[in-house]
Amino acid sequence: MTTSELKKMGERARAASYELQTMKQQDKELELLKCAEYLSIYKDEILSANAEDIERAIANDMHPGMVDRLRLDDARIEAMADGMRQVVKLKDPCGEVIEEFSRPNGLKIKKVRVPIGVIGIIYESRPNVTADAFALTFKSGNAVILKGGSDAISSNKAIVDILRRSLMSSNLNPDFVQLIEDTDRKITTAFMKLDKYIDVLIPRGGAGLIRHVVESATVPVIETGTGNCHIYVDKYADIDKAIKIIVNAKTQRIGVCNACESLVVHKEVARALSGRLVEALKEHNVEIRGDEFACDIIPDAVPATKDDWGKEYLDYIVSMKTVNSVEEAVEHINKYNTKHSEAIITEDKTTAQYFLDRIDAACVYVNASTRFTDGFEFGFGAEIGISTQKLHARGPMGLKELTSYKYEIIGNGQVR
Amino acid sequence: MTTSELKKMGERARAASYELQTMKQQDKELELLKCAEYLSIYKDEILSANAEDIERAIANDMHPGMVDRLRLDDARIEAMADGMRQVVKLKDPCGEVIEEFSRPNGLKIKKVRVPIGVIGIIYESRPNVTADAFALTFKSGNAVILKGGSDAISSNKAIVDILRRSLMSSNLNPDFVQLIEDTDRKITTAFMKLDKYIDVLIPRGGAGLIRHVVESATVPVIETGTGNCHIYVDKYADIDKAIKIIVNAKTQRIGVCNACESLVVHKEVARALSGRLVEALKEHNVEIRGDEFACDIIPDAVPATKDDWGKEYLDYIVSMKTVNSVEEAVEHINKYNTKHSEAIITEDKTTAQYFLDRIDAACVYVNASTRFTDGFEFGFGAEIGISTQKLHARGPMGLKELTSYKYEIIGNGQVR
Repeated sequence: MTTSELKKMGERARAASYELQTMKQQDKELELLKCAEYLSIYKDEILSANAEDIERAIANDMHPGMVDRLRLDDARIEAMADGMRQVVKLKDPCGEVIEEFSRPNGLKIKKVRVPIGVIGIIYESRPNVTADAFALTFKSGNAVILKGGSDAISSNKAIVDILRRSLMSSNLNPDFVQLIEDTDRKITTAFMKLDKYIDVLIPRGGAGLIRHVVESATVPVIETGTGNCHIYVDKYADIDKAIKIIVNAKTQRIGVCNACESLVVHKEVARALSGRLVEALKEHNVEIRGDEFACDIIPDAVPATKDDWGKEYLDYIVSMKTVNSVEEAVEHINKYNTKHSEAIITEDKTTAQYFLDRIDAACVYVNASTRFTDGFEFGFGAEIGISTQKLHARGPMGLKELTSYKYEIIGNGQVR
Repeated sequence: MTTSELKKMGERARAASYELQTMKQQDKELELLKCAEYLSIYKDEILSANAEDIERAIANDMHPGMVDRLRLDDARIEAMADGMRQVVKLKDPCGEVIEEFSRPNGLKIKKVRVPIGVIGIIYESRPNVTADAFALTFKSGNAVILKGGSDAISSNKAIVDILRRSLMSSNLNPDFVQLIEDTDRKITTAFMKLDKYIDVLIPRGGAGLIRHVVESATVPVIETGTGNCHIYVDKYADIDKAIKIIVNAKTQRIGVCNACESLVVHKEVARALSGRLVEALKEHNVEIRGDEFACDIIPDAVPATKDDWGKEYLDYIVSMKTVNSVEEAVEHINKYNTKHSEAIITEDKTTAQYFLDRIDAACVYVNASTRFTDGFEFGFGAEIGISTQKLHARGPMGLKELTSYKYEIIGNGQVR
């Protein structure tokens, strides 16, 4: 693929977005149901394409866990199709009148929710993201250009091809969804600079991918999904709650961005907490990396280095920092966190409010697991990612977060 | 200044933002009033600093119009102070509960409006932006780092110095506002990459400055203020309204982003419109650059080249494209506009709605001048700029557009 072909792809996406922005909610829903049906009907095409990806992955000595993420079977394809059917049920946010007001000169101003336009999504292995991303962008009225990882290229091609066939057979523009099939880095970099045609880029993947996009893109980026999440156990904590929440947030699923990576513990409760907590974490083989005070009271703890405080382990490891006050806890967390999800365990309302007011993160919890930061758990029905930046959208991004607005102003000849 | 000193500045801004985010509305208002007072009291410092800038500008053969924009006098300083007093009256948007809901598991979720954090503003000549930007960012709870143009450096230093003295004498952190005094390009570029400490960059200035920021920054950018604004005169237009609105939008102030730069005229009204319109524009010495049809019916028109359609003249020039339908008008405008402000003149509601639904711009007008795209005209009380992108904020940005949100989640031991 040449960069001029890529540019053409951008032009087609922009044109498609103008068709899509006025498509009726009902028509979008019917088409989404049909796309889901097509995925089921043509699943053999997906399975045989996926077999190519798997074969290549094994030949390249891919880690078995990664191969599993890549693998599709009947049940997983059915889950993809079901995911699309779920999105059908969500309310289309477009067209909502967000505000409406009149000015003294008689101008009537309406602030109306509209699709963003063209969304670019850059993601790594899992091919189910392809169908998910299309469903969410399409339902919210946006054209999408997908750039998946090279590992899943055959599966992604098959899925997008089926979606485009569904669109065409409904007499709709197939460019509502396009896939960049060229896996060359040069093309990826050029894609990130297509700001004339793409309104926002959403990278989904590891910290390295996200950093690369932030550094290369001229298209506005929404950073997602890096989570160095803390749980602060306050001196007024209910120890039972603390243990239950920490074990859940650390071990229920280790590879996700809302898992707990670091404990911050008030020194006054450290001893009372540590005995039972260490037992509970041991059952899951969790290694604790502690500061000096923590290591003193937890014989098995490994001394933490400075690097540990900022680390997203995504593993059975947790760091433990001890503090003398909630102020110190807040300062530590704001210094090392990734603005994702942070929790305090306390029975004291004033301390909880202090923490809520001052922690700089998308989601701040009192007495609950950080694992709830999720579009489904928040009741959004689906999510395209979890934003860790403060512009546009913060936290779980559902359909509404894939929209913008415009002002419609009705006059009667007014001039300045 | 070294880049490590710049980084320190970022760290101080981040720390200051954490203090500022919990400052009470009333305390912010009292301090803003005091800052305004300080500008008045110490105006001689500003005037003598400004004299240095003016002297340098004249020695460098700056265009007299530019020198005038740079020049401060008693009245202009008083206007700056008054601008700050106006901001005092605006409602502080922070703390607003945007949404509040409970989940079946008992979690109580609140979406609360909070300051963005640290805002960077890069701007060109006019020193009054310095005071304006501080007032708006401070009132909305954000720390600010300012990078003004080298032409106004002495004036900007004097103004920021006075603001910081006011903060210090109130026992507040002077780093709520900081100025980058080094005008070296390397420092400006490093500033744009300080994404660890700066949450958003707002460039204010010409298209060249904005493009440079978009291409260099790793900090999220809000693009502002480039306006290739169109007025489409439909076949159902009221010609009197059309002429009044065109003359206003083109000539009332030519150097602003919401001025009209291009006319799109339905061929069926082109003749009826052109005679009186040409007369009216001639009074203001406006040159018309038309397509073939336009040149045929307007003897004085200059043939437009392809470059004209995308041009923001900021001058007594207007391009004129003729079309056969509203569809063609919309297509032309969406192709060449900068997503700022577009208007249709028509008495037909269906055509107006077609235009409103399909034009891709922050502000779409029916029968009114594009010149109304402005924070004051919209009733926001003030503006930091006019966003031409679709992420975060679109159109005039007031205090609310300088905020983000966070989710506060109250549980009682919930785990997944």
